[in-house]
Amino acid sequence: MTLIMYQRIGHQERRPSPFSWRIEYAIAHKGIPVEFRPVRFADVETIRGLSGQDKVPIIVDGDQVVRDSWNIAVHLETRFPDHPSLFGGDVGRGLTRHINFWSDTILAPAIRRLIAADFIYCLAPEDRAYYRRSREAQFGCTLEVYCADRDRWVAEFESTIAPLEQSLSEQWYLAGAEPAYADYVVFSVLQYARLGSPHEVLRAGSAVRRWRDAIVMRFDELGNRNPGYPEVREGLEGR
Amino acid sequence: MTLIMYQRIGHQERRPSPFSWRIEYAIAHKGIPVEFRPVRFADVETIRGLSGQDKVPIIVDGDQVVRDSWNIAVHLETRFPDHPSLFGGDVGRGLTRHINFWSDTILAPAIRRLIAADFIYCLAPEDRAYYRRSREAQFGCTLEVYCADRDRWVAEFESTIAPLEQSLSEQWYLAGAEPAYADYVVFSVLQYARLGSPHEVLRAGSAVRRWRDAIVMRFDELGNRNPGYPEVREGLEGR
Repeated sequence: MTLIMYQRIGHQERRPSPFSWRIEYAIAHKGIPVEFRPVRFADVETIRGLSGQDKVPIIVDGDQVVRDSWNIAVHLETRFPDHPSLFGGDVGRGLTRHINFWSDTILAPAIRRLIAADFIYCLAPEDRAYYRRSREAQFGCTLEVYCADRDRWVAEFESTIAPLEQSLSEQWYLAGAEPAYADYVVFSVLQYARLGSPHEVLRAGSAVRRWRDAIVMRFDELGNRNPGYPEVREGLEGR
Repeated sequence: MTLIMYQRIGHQERRPSPFSWRIEYAIAHKGIPVEFRPVRFADVETIRGLSGQDKVPIIVDGDQVVRDSWNIAVHLETRFPDHPSLFGGDVGRGLTRHINFWSDTILAPAIRRLIAADFIYCLAPEDRAYYRRSREAQFGCTLEVYCADRDRWVAEFESTIAPLEQSLSEQWYLAGAEPAYADYVVFSVLQYARLGSPHEVLRAGSAVRRWRDAIVMRFDELGNRNPGYPEVREGLEGR
């Protein structure tokens, strides 16, 4: 049976959302057929109608609606136990949960400081005002002020990823010789940076960059399936 | 066969070293008999004679000498495959390696800012000058200056452990329902804070504190086997 996955889509099929990326990789890892249903970034109503809340991705699996990327990953692992494992057992699942929290609580905010002001141009012009209004309310300042002082945020980002650089200098993936869900989670946040900004945030020659690019290429170059950062920043609607 | 473990001992059988704690828990988890051989903190020569370098712990297993806590954990897992697993498989091992790097690169420095100036009193009076000299050279300032501005370092420590608080609010251990080596690694750094300073660094009622205290109690209260922080700061030799 085919899963249905709802995910937010930006300007001209762009799709930088880290939560959708980790699930798209999890589905590819499991090798399960999936049908994607795009939802516009600011279209909170469609998502709410399906799941009673406004976050994506959402998976519809027969008569089950599963929301929240972690719940979806656990659902996939439980529902398809004979397909390649996302966690590699109970210990792996516990540690993956922890790395998932680290990615969202520590890594993602460090990246937001680098890309929040660029990111708006990945969205459809009609969604930019929503993004600016909701993010500026959250940050307590304009997107541009939030990302000013870039040298400081680059230095903080580099300290944040230092343990990734160490691990990935010693092993191919966080999960060892082959990637697992923990890799996709951390990757998804770096993919959000890769597609959401014109600036490369990873140093040339670093182990983290080698690893990120290897994951981009997996599953028939899944990480390149959607367009990258727009070359021309179209429209000023977000301003 | 009994393993021999060399570890550094401080003032009156104190033993706050995180690297020794994680290995002592790993050995208890595996249920392997071990004989401890204490080495004084500043006695670099004994360690160097055994292993060609000056870090502890060191394990002697028959004619093999294994140094570096990660190598020791891998050695224990490989050598005693039928005893309870430290990693729970290949994925768990990869992710544990990553959490090990995070603990030593991010968590331990955050804790050092809180305890470095107190820690000296855990050492035997004759070792304190060595500690002060070597640490002040490393930090580029006195221990007291390094730990000044405590409010700032407490706030940084609390952000650093936020993902631990999230994980441990949802599951009993980082590895899930039961602890594994990743738990002992992170615990060992918090145990170093617990024994190395008179200040409790974990908030009452927090999930991290519940978890730390549960690990202290395991294996017949292993975490309380050595004395805590000295009530009287004896001697001024470290000054």
